[in-house]
Amino acid sequence: MTDESTSPTQDSSESEIDAGTEREPLFDRIPRRDFMKAGAAAGAMGSLAGCTGLLNDQDDGLAAAGDVDASVPPGEHDDYYAFLSGGHSGEIRVYGVPSMRQLMRIPVFGRESARGYGYDDRTSEMLDESGGYSWGDTHHPRVSQTDNDYDGRWAFVNDKANGRMARINLKYFETDAIVDIPNQQGTHGACCLLPDTKYVFGVGEFRVPMPNDGQDLTDPDSYTSTIAAIDPETMNVEWEVLVDGNMDNGDGSKEGRWFFATGYNSEHATTESEMSSTDTDWLKAFDVPAIEEAVENGQYEEIGGVPVVDGTRDSDLNGGDRPIVRYIDVAKSPHGVSVTPDNQYAIASGKLDPTASVIDIEQLAEVDDPNDAIVGRPSLGMGPLHTAYDGRGHAYTTLFIDSQVVKWDIEAAVEAEAQSEDPVVEKIDVHYNPGHLIAAESYTADPQGDWLISLNKLSKDRFLNVGPMKPENDQLIYIGDDEAGMQLVKDTPSYAEPHDASIVSADKIEPADIYDPEDYDEEFVDHGESDIVREDGQVHVKMYSTRNEFGFQEVTVQEGDEVTMTVTNIEQTPDILHSLAIPEHDINLKLAPQETREVTFTADEPGVYWMYCAFFCSALHLEMRSRLIVEPAE
Amino acid sequence: MTDESTSPTQDSSESEIDAGTEREPLFDRIPRRDFMKAGAAAGAMGSLAGCTGLLNDQDDGLAAAGDVDASVPPGEHDDYYAFLSGGHSGEIRVYGVPSMRQLMRIPVFGRESARGYGYDDRTSEMLDESGGYSWGDTHHPRVSQTDNDYDGRWAFVNDKANGRMARINLKYFETDAIVDIPNQQGTHGACCLLPDTKYVFGVGEFRVPMPNDGQDLTDPDSYTSTIAAIDPETMNVEWEVLVDGNMDNGDGSKEGRWFFATGYNSEHATTESEMSSTDTDWLKAFDVPAIEEAVENGQYEEIGGVPVVDGTRDSDLNGGDRPIVRYIDVAKSPHGVSVTPDNQYAIASGKLDPTASVIDIEQLAEVDDPNDAIVGRPSLGMGPLHTAYDGRGHAYTTLFIDSQVVKWDIEAAVEAEAQSEDPVVEKIDVHYNPGHLIAAESYTADPQGDWLISLNKLSKDRFLNVGPMKPENDQLIYIGDDEAGMQLVKDTPSYAEPHDASIVSADKIEPADIYDPEDYDEEFVDHGESDIVREDGQVHVKMYSTRNEFGFQEVTVQEGDEVTMTVTNIEQTPDILHSLAIPEHDINLKLAPQETREVTFTADEPGVYWMYCAFFCSALHLEMRSRLIVEPAE
Repeated sequence: MTDESTSPTQDSSESEIDAGTEREPLFDRIPRRDFMKAGAAAGAMGSLAGCTGLLNDQDDGLAAAGDVDASVPPGEHDDYYAFLSGGHSGEIRVYGVPSMRQLMRIPVFGRESARGYGYDDRTSEMLDESGGYSWGDTHHPRVSQTDNDYDGRWAFVNDKANGRMARINLKYFETDAIVDIPNQQGTHGACCLLPDTKYVFGVGEFRVPMPNDGQDLTDPDSYTSTIAAIDPETMNVEWEVLVDGNMDNGDGSKEGRWFFATGYNSEHATTESEMSSTDTDWLKAFDVPAIEEAVENGQYEEIGGVPVVDGTRDSDLNGGDRPIVRYIDVAKSPHGVSVTPDNQYAIASGKLDPTASVIDIEQLAEVDDPNDAIVGRPSLGMGPLHTAYDGRGHAYTTLFIDSQVVKWDIEAAVEAEAQSEDPVVEKIDVHYNPGHLIAAESYTADPQGDWLISLNKLSKDRFLNVGPMKPENDQLIYIGDDEAGMQLVKDTPSYAEPHDASIVSADKIEPADIYDPEDYDEEFVDHGESDIVREDGQVHVKMYSTRNEFGFQEVTVQEGDEVTMTVTNIEQTPDILHSLAIPEHDINLKLAPQETREVTFTADEPGVYWMYCAFFCSALHLEMRSRLIVEPAE
Repeated sequence: MTDESTSPTQDSSESEIDAGTEREPLFDRIPRRDFMKAGAAAGAMGSLAGCTGLLNDQDDGLAAAGDVDASVPPGEHDDYYAFLSGGHSGEIRVYGVPSMRQLMRIPVFGRESARGYGYDDRTSEMLDESGGYSWGDTHHPRVSQTDNDYDGRWAFVNDKANGRMARINLKYFETDAIVDIPNQQGTHGACCLLPDTKYVFGVGEFRVPMPNDGQDLTDPDSYTSTIAAIDPETMNVEWEVLVDGNMDNGDGSKEGRWFFATGYNSEHATTESEMSSTDTDWLKAFDVPAIEEAVENGQYEEIGGVPVVDGTRDSDLNGGDRPIVRYIDVAKSPHGVSVTPDNQYAIASGKLDPTASVIDIEQLAEVDDPNDAIVGRPSLGMGPLHTAYDGRGHAYTTLFIDSQVVKWDIEAAVEAEAQSEDPVVEKIDVHYNPGHLIAAESYTADPQGDWLISLNKLSKDRFLNVGPMKPENDQLIYIGDDEAGMQLVKDTPSYAEPHDASIVSADKIEPADIYDPEDYDEEFVDHGESDIVREDGQVHVKMYSTRNEFGFQEVTVQEGDEVTMTVTNIEQTPDILHSLAIPEHDINLKLAPQETREVTFTADEPGVYWMYCAFFCSALHLEMRSRLIVEPAE
């Protein structure tokens, strides 16, 4: 089937495009750069790979139909920030869309020397206090919202490897808090409760004994999974809910009531074949106000320092009248779940079943049997995983096994019989095996409806061979033209292993150019304030840095001294960074304008060490260095 | 002045381009993708920013002059690999040119979890044995050559922070050797002696006491710098040469005799102002066969286990008849040096002087006073740093202070008066403050002459704001059309801090798709060969991995056991990777097809830990996990 918005009569020679009658003209919704003149409308089903950026060599002045201009000429800015997770690289990456250029890397769960992350006392203590691990496994970067729209405050991301959640400060594009979530292993999903990001949820995938201290080792039935509600301001775990089965992905509804989580192991199994044995598993709907009420009423057990509320099926909180978790039977080993922009539906994909399940959020509150809230179950293709939205009534779902993205009509799926393929509008091949996909502002109440990125796990031979470890392939697809259909625009190789992303309009984030010293505790060391304080084998060196010098041309300490260096970059000019790198001492402090960092180390090897600036800061950058002189102990 | 190749008479409506009469037609040298029809030849001096990839909206079928097609449509491959250093990120990055897409990251001097680098026993021992540092500062990636052309064997890169040199195996695109260079601090330059990469040279920038063990701390005159000659096969430091002054960049000549190194501190100073006080410093020319002869004759002192030859000006090796190091006076604080493709000249840039010095390599061997080998000294602009070549007689030099790349005619510079600006052909603005630049195969005897990358240290506001730490900007410039002039094609944001790059034709590197188990010592564990061997508190777990399982569904050990896990990915299919991630144990082994890795750890916390695969390998990837059960000690 096709819905009316995909089949308007249209003059093919017309340069303006109208997506239909019931929505604002599409032309107002496409990227601000010139959208090229579309000629004859192309068939919608095929991939129009290979057409982007090619210069027109036709003589008629009309480019081929379906071509899209995704170029961002030198010096021009992208329309969107995309925040991609970095998987087991432990980082977040910031891309520009539509250029797909990587603008920045933000280390989160591991040390990173170019940014000095984990090299100064503050960030190394943060990493130590959250477990002391050297890496993490980031999956789901979500950006904070207010009133269901991006507010530019924070991004959050999980660590599946070590059960943690991190917060990234979008004023400075740096990780500023990490919480080690008690009672949870394999924290997989990460997402916000809307409209105002009241909580960030960590979703536990791996069922383990609770507490996991050596008890119940071989009794899988006693293992548990939890969701954890984290306060985004304090990064404190406010409460957890313990459930039957396990969970992986989640999404919050937009009116503040529901949090949804899929799970593939309702079997409580410990092997792959047993985990996949039943034909349905659960989509769990957490009734947040009911949980808060239970916590308020003391209906919890404190485990690992956190109130844990019983959300199993046998739980009789509220006398069973208003279960705090509703278990919805959906097919099979559901993976992705996301709430539609209008907050009407939660859509969970089958993974091992070709269908997605459409749950009516309003009905969910009213029905006795939560399965009665399933109002649609379209058949989409093999291996449906994750779903994004364009704000025009379409859903876009990745088909992992088919290596496709399928576009389908949500209302048509509600109207159609279960397992009907009629709601499918079109499919496009992607290369290859997509996991997540993300459309511009898909997680908000008002998606932009222009760009979509398919995060494909395999690239095979799409790029120059770089050895046995291939890049993944994040493909940019234009979805702004329902008439021409989805258009593959760019292949983007990406380092292992982005799982998910959020795309945010450029004007909704306002990063700082220089640091505000008021934001941090370190002592600002201004020009003329450099100082060395010695006391009992402790040496505190305070020095400024600027083009092209550090506050001291030499610093002399004794072998065995514990040395603290507090260093400020006193520059006021944006983009003039310095660092303090100390050879053979494993130290590199990154110092952006007006930033102060502090590092403590033991000077244990006599000798001369040239402390230097590792950011190329001026023509005399190489000469910007000072001697650390470590005198031998007597 | 302009040389004849830049001013041929040409019909501006002609679509074929001829660069002149003395070289093969330029059209044969441009990228294999369609080069768009150039209309009227544009003026050469301006930056033609903003024209790339834009679809033609003119009705005459002719695009604007100077447009270049640098797009690589989805699924098509780039023409070149570019190996960029990652500065104090400690890594190497592989880009495709002309797409400027990052194809891969290769961790070198620091652990990196996505690749499991530094997480298995072999690579973590390599990092430990080369100093145990967690980071490095990579500057100069150079690719091995045979007969003055890339041979696809290795790349090499320095660590300025800790005085090391690393080798990257281009069969697997992974670091396979690191040597800690004795007697050297601030190893800056890294480059190969041609034609056949007999040595890789590490160039010491920071003058320090030798040995640096607490002696001579405050006697800078006694400090020394060295160059180190490293055997590329064994990565053994064969010999070093100790010099007056310091050094930073270097380049080897193509007939195997000379190695050139610049230096900015002939003053032997310790402060920036003193280092910059004299109007000339030295370009040093190391006579490699003469040094080898001195080593052979025992004319060295062994320091730090390495033969160190005296290359100071007072050295009387060979009775002064044939000095092993020639000190050439060039202006001022010279930074970059590179040898022309025809091996006729070494060109050193002034950094604090607008001129470059052109040294005739043949004359250098003949003259008594090495300054007599300076045959040209063109005035290029403010802050000349590094020079690349197109193989058509032009040099391209970055002007750090002017934020430009200047194209100049080498022979014209030899013919002109010193400090003449006449050899300058044109300048193009770059954004901003370029350090290195690199042209395709510029380091070989036969550069490709099409693409050039300017590695600009600052991007200021060229990209969406990502906070106080901005990306750098690696700009792609088309240099294949002498008539149209240099054309700025792409801005590429890059993470801190690429210093230098090598660009290699795609067909000269042939990476493997899967591992050859013969290449490594680890024991291959095939299907059916999983095994657990226990002895005296040591547990050796051997297991295969494949879609979607590990060799064991559970592994039980005792608290306190030392556990070694040897894990093989038995897949034969390219691009199907697995990993072994162990929560709360800080372990992640990357396992490409047919790869075996081994990790040893102590199981010190009782509990259940779900070992899982962190590479999304199949629809049942999430279910690919096994329990590590750590039983409490009695």
